[in-house]
Amino acid sequence: MSTLSRLRREVAALHAELVRYQLVVWTAGNVSARVPGEDLMIIKPSGVSYDELTPESMILCDLDGAVVEGDHSPSSDTAAHAYVYRAMPEVGGVVHTHSTYATAWAARHEAIPCVLTAMADEFGAEIPVGPFALIGDDSIGRGIVQTLSGHRSPAVLMAGHGVFTIGKDARAAVKAAVMCEDVARSVHISRQLGEPRPIAQQDVDRLYDRYQNVYGQR
Amino acid sequence: MSTLSRLRREVAALHAELVRYQLVVWTAGNVSARVPGEDLMIIKPSGVSYDELTPESMILCDLDGAVVEGDHSPSSDTAAHAYVYRAMPEVGGVVHTHSTYATAWAARHEAIPCVLTAMADEFGAEIPVGPFALIGDDSIGRGIVQTLSGHRSPAVLMAGHGVFTIGKDARAAVKAAVMCEDVARSVHISRQLGEPRPIAQQDVDRLYDRYQNVYGQR
Amino acid sequence: MSTLSRLRREVAALHAELVRYQLVVWTAGNVSARVPGEDLMIIKPSGVSYDELTPESMILCDLDGAVVEGDHSPSSDTAAHAYVYRAMPEVGGVVHTHSTYATAWAARHEAIPCVLTAMADEFGAEIPVGPFALIGDDSIGRGIVQTLSGHRSPAVLMAGHGVFTIGKDARAAVKAAVMCEDVARSVHISRQLGEPRPIAQQDVDRLYDRYQNVYGQR
Amino acid sequence: MSTLSRLRREVAALHAELVRYQLVVWTAGNVSARVPGEDLMIIKPSGVSYDELTPESMILCDLDGAVVEGDHSPSSDTAAHAYVYRAMPEVGGVVHTHSTYATAWAARHEAIPCVLTAMADEFGAEIPVGPFALIGDDSIGRGIVQTLSGHRSPAVLMAGHGVFTIGKDARAAVKAAVMCEDVARSVHISRQLGEPRPIAQQDVDRLYDRYQNVYGQR
Repeated sequence: MSTLSRLRREVAALHAELVRYQLVVWTAGNVSARVPGEDLMIIKPSGVSYDELTPESMILCDLDGAVVEGDHSPSSDTAAHAYVYRAMPEVGGVVHTHSTYATAWAARHEAIPCVLTAMADEFGAEIPVGPFALIGDDSIGRGIVQTLSGHRSPAVLMAGHGVFTIGKDARAAVKAAVMCEDVARSVHISRQLGEPRPIAQQDVDRLYDRYQNVYGQR
Repeated sequence: MSTLSRLRREVAALHAELVRYQLVVWTAGNVSARVPGEDLMIIKPSGVSYDELTPESMILCDLDGAVVEGDHSPSSDTAAHAYVYRAMPEVGGVVHTHSTYATAWAARHEAIPCVLTAMADEFGAEIPVGPFALIGDDSIGRGIVQTLSGHRSPAVLMAGHGVFTIGKDARAAVKAAVMCEDVARSVHISRQLGEPRPIAQQDVDRLYDRYQNVYGQR
Repeated sequence: MSTLSRLRREVAALHAELVRYQLVVWTAGNVSARVPGEDLMIIKPSGVSYDELTPESMILCDLDGAVVEGDHSPSSDTAAHAYVYRAMPEVGGVVHTHSTYATAWAARHEAIPCVLTAMADEFGAEIPVGPFALIGDDSIGRGIVQTLSGHRSPAVLMAGHGVFTIGKDARAAVKAAVMCEDVARSVHISRQLGEPRPIAQQDVDRLYDRYQNVYGQR
Repeated sequence: MSTLSRLRREVAALHAELVRYQLVVWTAGNVSARVPGEDLMIIKPSGVSYDELTPESMILCDLDGAVVEGDHSPSSDTAAHAYVYRAMPEVGGVVHTHSTYATAWAARHEAIPCVLTAMADEFGAEIPVGPFALIGDDSIGRGIVQTLSGHRSPAVLMAGHGVFTIGKDARAAVKAAVMCEDVARSVHISRQLGEPRPIAQQDVDRLYDRYQNVYGQR
């Protein structure tokens, strides 16, 4: 199978993880993947329901967001995805959701403090807030890149909007979106009845370092 | 397939979306569709569980709510649906639910403020509160129409009761019901730990205008 | 099919509704049905998981809770169910759950106020609190009967414990359990951000009267 | 079937219960079982998704956590599981999750008070908090053992981290993990609107004693 066919299949299938973890309703979230070595990306079509997504219906775009191959319009968030790929060459996947708890923090323009070991593992720091930005130009993409450049966190809470996550590939970005909602929810619920205790910075550092270098199958 | 057969099938199938997004329990919500060009509508039978709904069990009523074709009584909310179709000729679908978070706002007689871009997209404003009204005459239908006439929002929180949504067709009204619960939940959760920041009116206007005219497949 | 076979099948199947609406975890809830015209009831076996329930595994007991037919011990709540059937001849079904939101009210020994039209329809009043009672004798059964006798509500919040519901048959009692958790959740969430507005007693009365006499298929 | 084959199958299957009750996301929780009469245990492979778990992919380790049989690395929590089996010979199963509500209590380093009869039944006391401990040496295992030794509760909230549960076998430990999240959620929600009333110690004792000795099938 060609790289493109494999990526189409992978991006289509990863949308089912957004549904499984209830990060999206109706047609509101999207996943994309960079085509390695090309100035191209694969992304969800706009306004199509998750049940109807197939590898063939995924859209191939260039990194300015123009359609190269596909029968539908690409996701209305295509410009933001494309901006990230242009600005951050190490990024191979981007995910966008309005997942409930993360969006609740975003609506207050408030970062999620790093108070859980699982959060230190995956995010290595607080999950930061990006600027309030309107759709229609490069504002959202620029806000994502400015917030995440030089930050350990692969997730940003875009103020008044929702979550964008990045990863070395689309699967890693989806994992970050799932973990972001999970810690957004746990920390929110913890704070409803008091203050979660902070984790010392040196412990956050050790957890992050170990998880990034040791965890999982080699 | 005739228009009537297609509508029966569509209305039956759309009830499964209410179940999927957990907007209803037992037999408590309902979807209807106007029969285009006729003074008729298709609506759920009363007190029948969602698993047992079939295209054939849907009820055909006139716009006074009288049964034209069907073996069961129509939904006990039929009078409200019918009133909306009589008063708002642009409406092709109506949905009613007691979805949890929207109903929680409705129980306080409190509108949901427009603090998320997704809410500006779909609702273009706060989601307003309609009057407390008893079932049995035109009070509910009149309350819906008075609240939504001239309002951008396709959803109204009926005080102490639940949600009614409208759309150009039944699918659009179901989408509004799904999005209404989604933003009711996100804004509620955000407010549990502080105040979500408002979106400037001009930004709400730009988001609403773009979404209504650009989003999705043409 | 004999009445007994039909009841075994019905009681087994109704447990799936407790699972579907997430009213139970592991093996913690139970449904029973009176055998009409006999001093007998059908009830869930104790400590058996919901996936493994079959019509044949249901237990037939007399109304003192002694096993008449069945290979397992009956539910550890059998004495409470039996007490209700002995004391309330109009009751044909009983359900017990620890559903989350209802149990949260029960842990505070606090009744759920009637602030939603759906609650007025089904419960006709607040959902009352019964006494704190230990398992092992008739205390729980007596608490249920004393609280629900002469009360419109088919549900009681047993203090520090969970919910018992009654109905003309097992299906009606399951419906009451589903609706009880639904309104417990909606009213709880509403009160998190303020006070839901009460419904006037005369409106509660009119809603209750109409729903009990008109709703559903005749 | 050999004991080892049976245990591999059982441990693989029990992970599906963590998924069913939404105690885990992505690959974050794990179940293990002691091999009776041997210094061996069966545990989940690291970083493998729940859908892909098979009896064959489970890892056989000694009680120092070294792999005896298996193609993957064992769970990154293997050292903690192994420590528990070495120190507590009566334990036959261990479970670890970051389930949401339990983790919310853990983030505040706060025990869950025993205010529900179901909690008295299963836990016999508050669910206690263990120390904040970093992964990488015996700190977590030691914290679990010190907290649970001589305590009725089969669950410990590890501060800033998540839940560990123990049981006579893996199924009992999974049940404890399911019940722990259930009571963590109910008690949390109850406390959002006031204070749940405590259960007298003598009543906790009687409930615990009865449940441990009478409940379920003999």
